[in-house]
Amino acid sequence: MSRSNLARLLVSCPDREGIVAALANALADSGANITSSDQFSSDPLGGSFSLRMEFYVPEPETRIPLLEQRLGEIAEKLDLEYKLVDAHVRKRVAIFVSKYDHCLIDLLGRWHRGDLEMDIVMVVSNHPDLAVEAARFGVPYHHIPVTKESKPQAEAAQLELLQKHGGADLVVMARYMQVLSADFLANVGAPVINIHHSFLPAFAGADPYKRAHHRGVKLIGATAHYATEDLDEGPIIEQDVVRVSHREDAIALERIGADVERLVLARAVERHLQDRVLLQGHRTIVF
Amino acid sequence: MSRSNLARLLVSCPDREGIVAALANALADSGANITSSDQFSSDPLGGSFSLRMEFYVPEPETRIPLLEQRLGEIAEKLDLEYKLVDAHVRKRVAIFVSKYDHCLIDLLGRWHRGDLEMDIVMVVSNHPDLAVEAARFGVPYHHIPVTKESKPQAEAAQLELLQKHGGADLVVMARYMQVLSADFLANVGAPVINIHHSFLPAFAGADPYKRAHHRGVKLIGATAHYATEDLDEGPIIEQDVVRVSHREDAIALERIGADVERLVLARAVERHLQDRVLLQGHRTIVF
Amino acid sequence: MSRSNLARLLVSCPDREGIVAALANALADSGANITSSDQFSSDPLGGSFSLRMEFYVPEPETRIPLLEQRLGEIAEKLDLEYKLVDAHVRKRVAIFVSKYDHCLIDLLGRWHRGDLEMDIVMVVSNHPDLAVEAARFGVPYHHIPVTKESKPQAEAAQLELLQKHGGADLVVMARYMQVLSADFLANVGAPVINIHHSFLPAFAGADPYKRAHHRGVKLIGATAHYATEDLDEGPIIEQDVVRVSHREDAIALERIGADVERLVLARAVERHLQDRVLLQGHRTIVF
Amino acid sequence: MSRSNLARLLVSCPDREGIVAALANALADSGANITSSDQFSSDPLGGSFSLRMEFYVPEPETRIPLLEQRLGEIAEKLDLEYKLVDAHVRKRVAIFVSKYDHCLIDLLGRWHRGDLEMDIVMVVSNHPDLAVEAARFGVPYHHIPVTKESKPQAEAAQLELLQKHGGADLVVMARYMQVLSADFLANVGAPVINIHHSFLPAFAGADPYKRAHHRGVKLIGATAHYATEDLDEGPIIEQDVVRVSHREDAIALERIGADVERLVLARAVERHLQDRVLLQGHRTIVF
Repeated sequence: MSRSNLARLLVSCPDREGIVAALANALADSGANITSSDQFSSDPLGGSFSLRMEFYVPEPETRIPLLEQRLGEIAEKLDLEYKLVDAHVRKRVAIFVSKYDHCLIDLLGRWHRGDLEMDIVMVVSNHPDLAVEAARFGVPYHHIPVTKESKPQAEAAQLELLQKHGGADLVVMARYMQVLSADFLANVGAPVINIHHSFLPAFAGADPYKRAHHRGVKLIGATAHYATEDLDEGPIIEQDVVRVSHREDAIALERIGADVERLVLARAVERHLQDRVLLQGHRTIVF
Repeated sequence: MSRSNLARLLVSCPDREGIVAALANALADSGANITSSDQFSSDPLGGSFSLRMEFYVPEPETRIPLLEQRLGEIAEKLDLEYKLVDAHVRKRVAIFVSKYDHCLIDLLGRWHRGDLEMDIVMVVSNHPDLAVEAARFGVPYHHIPVTKESKPQAEAAQLELLQKHGGADLVVMARYMQVLSADFLANVGAPVINIHHSFLPAFAGADPYKRAHHRGVKLIGATAHYATEDLDEGPIIEQDVVRVSHREDAIALERIGADVERLVLARAVERHLQDRVLLQGHRTIVF
Repeated sequence: MSRSNLARLLVSCPDREGIVAALANALADSGANITSSDQFSSDPLGGSFSLRMEFYVPEPETRIPLLEQRLGEIAEKLDLEYKLVDAHVRKRVAIFVSKYDHCLIDLLGRWHRGDLEMDIVMVVSNHPDLAVEAARFGVPYHHIPVTKESKPQAEAAQLELLQKHGGADLVVMARYMQVLSADFLANVGAPVINIHHSFLPAFAGADPYKRAHHRGVKLIGATAHYATEDLDEGPIIEQDVVRVSHREDAIALERIGADVERLVLARAVERHLQDRVLLQGHRTIVF
Repeated sequence: MSRSNLARLLVSCPDREGIVAALANALADSGANITSSDQFSSDPLGGSFSLRMEFYVPEPETRIPLLEQRLGEIAEKLDLEYKLVDAHVRKRVAIFVSKYDHCLIDLLGRWHRGDLEMDIVMVVSNHPDLAVEAARFGVPYHHIPVTKESKPQAEAAQLELLQKHGGADLVVMARYMQVLSADFLANVGAPVINIHHSFLPAFAGADPYKRAHHRGVKLIGATAHYATEDLDEGPIIEQDVVRVSHREDAIALERIGADVERLVLARAVERHLQDRVLLQGHRTIVF
């Protein structure tokens, strides 16, 4: 990793005694000043262990390598997985989008304003419509049409493009109306965040607003989750709802829902960029 | 109807021209002073029409009968269904409950405090546990055990009890953990409000908190709806949610959810008591 | 007024008997089909009366003038003020802004997407920074610097500009960081909506996020209100809040608050454009 | 402290390097298994440090004393304040109340249901009205009238009562409509949580619902805070709001507000009982 002076340590593993002390010692010996630390064990008697620490390291060029060595030893001894992250290295993000613009524009705006610390590698779309939005912000936009028949080729082209752009640390489906294949997910080499326009598991699948209106619900929502090959079943990162009434028809629900979609997606992306989202099986720990 | 000076007019029918004028004229001719009026048409071109008006009538003993006559004529002419309600007549409510006490206690407390304008006819339970709660408030409590085999007899006994108590205008299932049969619903002669401990249609059926925890949702909710023979499919009156995190296990979700259950049920009952809930097909209009 | 077939009738006056009937008759006689109607009286015994009706009128070219005549007669007889609005005539809106871009961009985006039915007359700013945003959407942008000394001249220039552009039906202060003088408000000839970046009356005045952080509040909010010469005291149209914690410093609160500011402002503008906001003294009725 | 096997360590101090490691080592050497850990530093360069750890200790009778010794040494060396809490020892709580019953009944209900892990020492009131509620749950109720003149004597009597009951770890003002004097607060020897029936700092002082109605706010709220001698200025623990509209008069606001008051108070009390609330100056850290 690179060597700025703000770093994060992330650990997910089966719970056992002494992990916190071992890690805290390694940090202390590196002169790190921990500014925030969150830890959660799913079950005191042998469950899962998740930890996130953020800390300042003086003289990172020399000390981070030492820290990495210590962490490696601890990991081996305690059989744990860890990640040491340079908090000043911006994650590289590819955004997938179709025709709805609200999530894309929202993400680009937050990025432009400096609220989302990321580099946007490119925007990929199965439609040409939103090229103008990407252009406004000087972000590359690639139009790769997708049909039922051409999907494997289209996904191969997407992966190739990603590689050509130097890869991504995160893919964001900002209302990308195609299901990514298990193959794509296996090969993309980065987590994929999707926004589903309903409060999952309610109205999983297509046309959630139409079905929400038909069902007469009094709240509509949105769900940001990691995409997995089980459609709409991936680990949930963030959800929110907004109150509606009989006055709103399905079209109005969709319009109102757009506000909660973009907020929920932005929050999920932000938490991911800050390494706040850890996995315990198919559930997330959001520190 | 009885004749206090505060009344409500409720109308649900296919939409057509001139309904509001005809009704407003009838009220004006009766000297009524409308204090609040809500009307909603699902579709300007031939949809459903719903209206609720609340008004004061001076000299109600003589004028309400005249108003009723006028409304009858309008109903015949315009082929509409209406209800004229004396707002000072408290609805008679029977509460069905099992072992969870939070909804029952909440309803009894609000009733006792004067916040829910209703008369509680009786509390019926398939368990003896909550008799003490009803006793505190001087409300009759009837324990009618229910098993798979005895359900028809138990429901017959419930209906008989209701009749003996003079009938009810509303039945509230305050976490009554039995499914009411289609027969019961057909014969009870009153709407039935149920509280489901999830944000429907998510986690319909049994054990919603356990399933919510397993799914890793970030919000849990509750849904108050009219009971129909399609379990958990009746018209939704009110819903709300509360934020949770990975820290809460299924038991904590249940405990936290109890707060939103009782709030949602109380709001639904209150709106029903105030004749604010009208039906358009299987959707509610909540004025 | 112009003559499309969707119209709205708005009435605010002291309450008295028979208003609803008189108005409903006038509408019925014009062949109007009321699709939604809301009425509220502050007090059954002589309070304020507010009403909003939305309706379709066939052959509006001939019937709307007849309706206007009837309404005029009723207004005189019952001493009430009314407005008949062509719902298809888009209101002309001028947006005032300073340097913060989130509210402006949000309004422009909603307008561009067709979610806010208005015509944007121009954007006025005391800074040149956001000209590029207006340009993107093809909206005129006028930079009128304001200093303590030049304020009267600046406001005169703003009013002149408005006139040159044909006037406005609504002025929106989208984080315009100047206080409009009583003179300006008296002469602008249109209501002015302001967004205050706190949950009023908490943290009225300057630097609300800094003060909110210092006070350690657990929710921050925003308030959209009509501007009056009493700063931050005008009638409140809409408010909302978002949860925060000790983790957020004043800068983070400002960033998070921007989301609730733009939502609250957009909702207030939308309700105003739909003629849903009526005044009873210094309080709003939001139908 | 007593010696069950679940304990909590709480630390508040000026931030400096190595605290987490020193504490984690002390815990590890005691065989503790940390199940949850939260730490927050207000400023990486010399701000305040707050930490809460929850952990299991096997053989607590012998190991907790060793841990205490280690913590004492660390505290001296690093000049920090800490508290080691036996998580199974229920805090002793005295509830102060006047005539409004909703917060008292809510707290008693949660306690009775096992949701709030505390022992209720007594209920003190300046009115006799709610004695019946305390009696239902078998909790001592003391009526100590308070007038302007008798306040010093009344407070002395309250303190004496507390002492006679063996003291309290927490005092909860559950809508106790008297201001506690600085003297009382200095001598009570326990933190005092108050519930204010508004979203502070809005509507601090008397009659918040009346003033909220007059101001036409669209949300009303409640604030739980530690009582200090500066009325309504103590550190905020929890806040929440509920949406209202023009339809609600001041009396309805009060009724609706009661729901949010009791929820907010219950949450604040629960977090305090779980030692989740730490102080950094006049702001709370709520882990």
